Amino acid sequence: MREMPKPAFMKQTLSELGIGTYHDIAFIHPDTPIIKALNIFVERRVSALPVVDNSGKVVDIYSKFDVINLAAEKTYNNLDNTVTQALKHRSQYFEGVVKCNKMETMETIVNRIVKAEVHRLVVVDEHASIEGIVSLSDILQALVLSPTEASKEENLTMYEGGSVSNSGNLVGETAGKSTG
Amino acid sequence: MREMPKPAFMKQTLSELGIGTYHDIAFIHPDTPIIKALNIFVERRVSALPVVDNSGKVVDIYSKFDVINLAAEKTYNNLDNTVTQALKHRSQYFEGVVKCNKMETMETIVNRIVKAEVHRLVVVDEHASIEGIVSLSDILQALVLSPTEASKEENLTMYEGGSVSNSGNLVGETAGKSTG
Repeated sequence: MREMPKPAFMKQTLSELGIGTYHDIAFIHPDTPIIKALNIFVERRVSALPVVDNSGKVVDIYSKFDVINLAAEKTYNNLDNTVTQALKHRSQYFEGVVKCNKMETMETIVNRIVKAEVHRLVVVDEHASIEGIVSLSDILQALVLSPTEASKEENLTMYEGGSVSNSGNLVGETAGKSTG
Repeated sequence: MREMPKPAFMKQTLSELGIGTYHDIAFIHPDTPIIKALNIFVERRVSALPVVDNSGKVVDIYSKFDVINLAAEKTYNNLDNTVTQALKHRSQYFEGVVKCNKMETMETIVNRIVKAEVHRLVVVDEHASIEGIVSLSDILQALVLSPTEASKEENLTMYEGGSVSNSGNLVGETAGKSTG
């Protein structure tokens, strides 16, 4: 029987587990034009961009969902406007960037994500400067890799070659259904 | 001045614009074990898996956020349980899978996404059978590609070679900050 890896996994810190991205993080500045942020989303395939001021402090976050909100607005939007201007509509209910530090446990981090209903936390140091990002994907990957050795091996066998399409009835069944 | 491509773009249908994924869609069945769903998330890099019954009808959706919710629960979770069992906790407030069809306009689709606060719609035919997925990323990519020819060229130049890291001060500034 395979179980969610608790409590051992959940009592360890982000630092101990090495979960998250800490190199080459995609981010923007308060004065970055919306059009540049859009291009970074497409090129980097990230779901949100931390907004970082000149001192390295995280001051906001601009997500793909914010972009779609912008597209849903009835007014025209100038894509040369800054992300700060784009995020103004949100200021009334926005509770701030949801952050964590590397000494916090996975339990704390997972609970914070669930409670705030966000898809990632920004990892900051003691000066609120950006250090990294820990996303749902990062945590999910750690969950998959952390069960027993036996289930690890099974996982490798199941999806050998990096494609689950070969594994039979789980995916790819709709390939012939394309309505192109 | 570059603007969000409205109203021309927003009045067109999903079918006319060809936005979304319609080939080799990753999905699961109601009796798929959680562990298999986790592996598909990691391998396919998708943010949600439609749950499809034997007739091809979309009956639910299992997202990365649902997995993190599971991890946050205080009880142990058997990963050999089915996704249907995993999703039971959600049944009280779950309003159903948010869907669309290919004849709906981008305006309708964008508004539905914003109102439902979801990250994708499942594209279905008249029998509620799965045809595809339209995600925030798909829409964002279309937004970036649809402005004037002039800005398209600019985009290509800005991010030549598929990496924005080369474009200067927007990304990569924290690369030296790794705390590994």
